[in-house]
Amino acid sequence: MRKLASTLTGLEYPFGRLEEFADNGEALEVSVAGIERARPQPGRHLWERFAQFLPFKAMDASASLGEGNTPLLEAGGPLRAFAGLERLLLKNETQNPTWSFKDRGSLACVFMAREMGEGVTATISTGNMGHSIAAYGARAGLKTLVFVPDFAPQEKLMAMTMHGAAVIRVRAPDYADMKKVVLGLAKAFGLRIVSGNGPIRVEGYKLTAFEFYEQTRGELPDYIAVPTSACGHIRGLFKGFRELLAAGLIRRLPRMIVVQAANNSPIVSAIKQGKQHVIPFSNFHTVAEAITTGNPMGGDEIIAKAYQHHWLAEDATEAEILEAQRVLAQAGWFVEPAAATTLCAVKKLRAAGKITASESVVLMLTGGGLKDLDALKHQPFSVTESNLGNVRRDLERALRG
Amino acid sequence: MRKLASTLTGLEYPFGRLEEFADNGEALEVSVAGIERARPQPGRHLWERFAQFLPFKAMDASASLGEGNTPLLEAGGPLRAFAGLERLLLKNETQNPTWSFKDRGSLACVFMAREMGEGVTATISTGNMGHSIAAYGARAGLKTLVFVPDFAPQEKLMAMTMHGAAVIRVRAPDYADMKKVVLGLAKAFGLRIVSGNGPIRVEGYKLTAFEFYEQTRGELPDYIAVPTSACGHIRGLFKGFRELLAAGLIRRLPRMIVVQAANNSPIVSAIKQGKQHVIPFSNFHTVAEAITTGNPMGGDEIIAKAYQHHWLAEDATEAEILEAQRVLAQAGWFVEPAAATTLCAVKKLRAAGKITASESVVLMLTGGGLKDLDALKHQPFSVTESNLGNVRRDLERALRG
Repeated sequence: MRKLASTLTGLEYPFGRLEEFADNGEALEVSVAGIERARPQPGRHLWERFAQFLPFKAMDASASLGEGNTPLLEAGGPLRAFAGLERLLLKNETQNPTWSFKDRGSLACVFMAREMGEGVTATISTGNMGHSIAAYGARAGLKTLVFVPDFAPQEKLMAMTMHGAAVIRVRAPDYADMKKVVLGLAKAFGLRIVSGNGPIRVEGYKLTAFEFYEQTRGELPDYIAVPTSACGHIRGLFKGFRELLAAGLIRRLPRMIVVQAANNSPIVSAIKQGKQHVIPFSNFHTVAEAITTGNPMGGDEIIAKAYQHHWLAEDATEAEILEAQRVLAQAGWFVEPAAATTLCAVKKLRAAGKITASESVVLMLTGGGLKDLDALKHQPFSVTESNLGNVRRDLERALRG
Repeated sequence: MRKLASTLTGLEYPFGRLEEFADNGEALEVSVAGIERARPQPGRHLWERFAQFLPFKAMDASASLGEGNTPLLEAGGPLRAFAGLERLLLKNETQNPTWSFKDRGSLACVFMAREMGEGVTATISTGNMGHSIAAYGARAGLKTLVFVPDFAPQEKLMAMTMHGAAVIRVRAPDYADMKKVVLGLAKAFGLRIVSGNGPIRVEGYKLTAFEFYEQTRGELPDYIAVPTSACGHIRGLFKGFRELLAAGLIRRLPRMIVVQAANNSPIVSAIKQGKQHVIPFSNFHTVAEAITTGNPMGGDEIIAKAYQHHWLAEDATEAEILEAQRVLAQAGWFVEPAAATTLCAVKKLRAAGKITASESVVLMLTGGGLKDLDALKHQPFSVTESNLGNVRRDLERALRG
């Protein structure tokens, strides 16, 4: 038995229609009956081992690109010192098939599209989401449509078209207007526009929690810091932990840390101000291009959960984000700016005493550094110009320096 | 007991010095005593489980970025039809920490640098190798130097400098001259310049063979197709299989398929012509930028092994490479052109009857598509330009199209 219900009011929707949001804009959540008795089973893939927790009937490896199974690593001394923490870990989601966490959600969408007999998958995106959907659509043999705003970066469009997606660039005075028009049309055509916070995507992100459970042998960290935009990722992670708790497999829930760019912090600002509703942002700019949802649908659920479960919330200024990106790269991890926000946010929370030095924190590295080369123009770049006559001197200097 | 010896003449070198090549330019190979009795052990990391096969004394997770553990997936119908094979698999090395296979070799280099008490790691590179060495040097706290030619792409230099590497751009009339001068200087300074085909890197690539052994439960494929440039990757893979055979863990060796761009095929041309020595290429251009070693040191070993072990060898034209890149992306995998060469080479070998339809073939996907965005200018790019007034019509067309 599978149910689909609003996360705030509990209002139920028919599972077969699989709406992305409730009519009032609230997030919808899938629940599977008997989760208290669900158990991991032997299996090659994560989604096989945790099949009893999942709502999909059509799961098979031919839809998978080998998402997940990403490293969870202890940070070295310099990174721990920067954050002021004794136990800092990194979950490297950039080692997914399209080099972002989005792939786990895309797998879930493709499983469900197959089960529902949908031949088309569509989304509205400027970047990682469109790229991931295009790759999974290609793998599953689905027709893929990506609606992009006119400011979408060319590189990301190139990746989508390489995967064979039909890309429709919609010129419009405002991205939010464009989204509204496309969503309305899609409804008229009976076409699902996959959202970053839809109930089925969340089931894919949930698997990350199960992977944590396996990798830590049930010894979960105190905190998990998540760059937050559409809200699906943090929601899916936490849903996984809630289900592990319900099944009696863990004894306590890790606390989430909601992280956003200070220039666009609709959720973090609301939590800091003790509000119940998303505070919409518009006409902002941030170097953290991958987390630019200014008014996330279903965001109120995240705010409610933050109060209920004593989560933390912190933002990161542009300068802090760029510094964190450098510090992470100089420790070995080259991530896009959005993925670096957690490091500086955690450092601030530690400095403010909201996290103690001995508590363990995981940073979710959500997307790879090559995904946003444009952002590097804000970083220092220094190359020693040499030639065959000077190279001995320059080598000596480099060895000394 | 660890030995270092030439792969062709067997001449031994002292292990402590760890030369990258024999004085006559032949490839050097490490051997570990008692390999016949080596066995996999329980362990979290691949290098723990296969520790008895490895020459390193200093191995610990603080040097690792979570390399390896990459998916081995069955191709879907369209890709199998394209290649003309019933069993085609993809080993996705783009899911490594710096999104190429190089990371497995870099881990080995860092293990050995620590054991030898080296505080500096250096290489000459235009791309993936320098990026990977810079990341692993950062992780291990080593000073990292990368010598680059003046034609090295800016994006790759940006990745290296983000990781904190000292990048020295050496203007020179010829890249081969530049390499010679830098190698000579390094020798004078007692600085190891890590080569893509050095004996220690090869020990890292060897782990890929052990991973195949685990993933296939010993049921290895008939063929493994490898884009070949410096030669370290194909050499390391095959060395791993040889050691598994010596240890009695497998009963037969998979056959390698050496793949190069037709515009730069120093090894493949030699094998096709029945020659014993590398046929040097210079002043060539290929879109497969990651496999542009024109005169690979130690290449004669690969040629000798190809005859001895009945390997196959095939090249790929520029048009074939670009087609293969598209076909792979439209099946779900977005790789750089060098990594696509194997698909078209295997298709040609199948068409020529050198591979039968029922034999199983693995393609090594060596580097991700975002690593070489410049190459995409050779690919068709089509976006539907729309606006709020036309988007209904454009959506209808896309759904029909």
